[in-house]
Amino acid sequence: MTIDELDTPAVIVDLDLMERNMKRLAEYCTRAGIALRPHTKTHKIPELAKLQIQYGAWGITVAKVSEARVMRNSGIDDILIAYPIVADIKARELALLAQNTRLTVSLDSLEAVQSISCAAAERGVHIRLLVEVDVGMHRCGVATPSAAVALAQGILKLPNVEFAGLMFYPGHMMVPRPRFLELLVPLNRLLNEVYGAFAGAAIPIEVVSGGSTPTAFFSDEFQGVTEIRPGMYPFYDRNMVGADVVPVENCALSVLVTVVSTAVTGKVIVDGGSKAFSSDRFLSGHQRGFGLVVEDPDAELEALSEEHGHLSIAASSRPYRLRERLRVIPNHVCSTINMHERIYGIRGDRVETSWVVAGHGKLQ
Amino acid sequence: MTIDELDTPAVIVDLDLMERNMKRLAEYCTRAGIALRPHTKTHKIPELAKLQIQYGAWGITVAKVSEARVMRNSGIDDILIAYPIVADIKARELALLAQNTRLTVSLDSLEAVQSISCAAAERGVHIRLLVEVDVGMHRCGVATPSAAVALAQGILKLPNVEFAGLMFYPGHMMVPRPRFLELLVPLNRLLNEVYGAFAGAAIPIEVVSGGSTPTAFFSDEFQGVTEIRPGMYPFYDRNMVGADVVPVENCALSVLVTVVSTAVTGKVIVDGGSKAFSSDRFLSGHQRGFGLVVEDPDAELEALSEEHGHLSIAASSRPYRLRERLRVIPNHVCSTINMHERIYGIRGDRVETSWVVAGHGKLQ
Repeated sequence: MTIDELDTPAVIVDLDLMERNMKRLAEYCTRAGIALRPHTKTHKIPELAKLQIQYGAWGITVAKVSEARVMRNSGIDDILIAYPIVADIKARELALLAQNTRLTVSLDSLEAVQSISCAAAERGVHIRLLVEVDVGMHRCGVATPSAAVALAQGILKLPNVEFAGLMFYPGHMMVPRPRFLELLVPLNRLLNEVYGAFAGAAIPIEVVSGGSTPTAFFSDEFQGVTEIRPGMYPFYDRNMVGADVVPVENCALSVLVTVVSTAVTGKVIVDGGSKAFSSDRFLSGHQRGFGLVVEDPDAELEALSEEHGHLSIAASSRPYRLRERLRVIPNHVCSTINMHERIYGIRGDRVETSWVVAGHGKLQ
Repeated sequence: MTIDELDTPAVIVDLDLMERNMKRLAEYCTRAGIALRPHTKTHKIPELAKLQIQYGAWGITVAKVSEARVMRNSGIDDILIAYPIVADIKARELALLAQNTRLTVSLDSLEAVQSISCAAAERGVHIRLLVEVDVGMHRCGVATPSAAVALAQGILKLPNVEFAGLMFYPGHMMVPRPRFLELLVPLNRLLNEVYGAFAGAAIPIEVVSGGSTPTAFFSDEFQGVTEIRPGMYPFYDRNMVGADVVPVENCALSVLVTVVSTAVTGKVIVDGGSKAFSSDRFLSGHQRGFGLVVEDPDAELEALSEEHGHLSIAASSRPYRLRERLRVIPNHVCSTINMHERIYGIRGDRVETSWVVAGHGKLQ
């Protein structure tokens, strides 16, 4: 099958680029002595998670219990749920999963520990827990070394849960290098204070899980990090290009769309809208637009209806024909893949494979 | 089952409110002598489409061929695809559908007519076509009465396609009533010019398909409209409230979420993010925020990570507890339902039913 035979809109992944991106980070991690535990919320595809493991990843990360179930059902048995699981209904599902999975969960409250301990004890399983520390994003995580130690001590007192270490997410560090280095100073100071507090309390820390795609190749600059959880690095996207994380040539994923209307002057309508791209915004500079048109850097995907992409061609000299196809690199690859039931792997013009997005719609 | 037993995030629909919303518009349409052809892209659920028909709708509208297939497979046999179908691969699927469906398609190009005529002739089926006219939104649609007549004449010359009438989408008219009345003047002038041009060319117009949820109860003010295609009216949403289309009490749908972290001061994290709500923006006033918290008008769902809702409680005096549940009315109901595999119908605290979002992820 060739790309021309794909119905649109369709997400296509350049396999050569994706494999290169996967290998490049795995090699960096090997050199740096840091375990790679990719966040598979980006693609939600078990086959790709297994490919990441084949290329050197140590287990995977997911965001939700239902995503963990999808990955476990495909045979992956070392899973970190990097999300505070606080509800009993989810804790019971965790305990079920832990019967045949090396399961780790991050959290920032004693209530979550109690709920998980109780469910794990009922099933007679053990669940590994990471204490999340807020290193500056101010989303989840305890704020101080003493709060982190207190939570770890809470874990140590309860049955069927094991204190495995610390987790943090530097989500505020997708910034230019000089600013990154500025932010790194207080972050490392906090991490060192935490390590000191744990040493003082004689609590050993096995894992320090950090990292993200924007910071992935600087992971060795974070004090004491033993593993990282980047998600987007197999594909990258317009936001990663906008933040100077990679050049556009590294982007492996685009949405193949068809021009469906040229009736309105100065505009071209393509058959991918917010239900194909997501409405996620561009996070850099002028913050406008919803994708990069590979065939025409002067076109701007200026607005999205649900099923219509509004391409402004006012600044472009490229002629547009009804029924032609274009490739658009989306703002945010994680959100885009999540809109699709199936995505396609290509080499050149050939569709070499396709994958069901098995975790698509798995929100609980 | 009660709501407390639902795992979160979960979309819940107040059945009493939904039924009242459905009936109210159906009754208006009956009084106005206008056919109601609901746009089912809003929910993508065959059972709800059938309920709309039971309450008086004449057939349904969909956005994509794959959505039409889902609805046809459930037994609905009068479908308008309000979307320009230009690709041969889709035209062949249209022809298949037309074997047992009264199928109508809107378009704005002769290339689309030719492709559909060719595919319909191959299968020996007939497909009804509407010429889309741009009445001011500037998305799709021919701009002039003469272009509309020319396209209709193109349809009349080709086999296995039938010119059924006109379609327009007043997507630019979600505005306060005085502005609406201003915009209505040139819109009705254009429609009258189009009708005049068709009369001059002796081409009868059977259907004039207009309308949307924001304009639904003013449909009789659009000259010559014979049917409307509102989507959101069974549920409404924050954008409909923001645009003064309905009071918040009419909103039938919310996302049930759980508080998963209170570790960061001034903030509460809930377990619904952009993958549960979509990233669709609030279109009115300050344009901020991603939902209305039913339990606390002073809280602001200020940001969405993929799986985290960031609730600012800086302006609220309500105490928040970890593990408690909240209901949040989303900005855009169509995009929100599309993120879910299944949604739930409730009466009071009882979960009375649930529906699979069968068209979820159907993009082609």
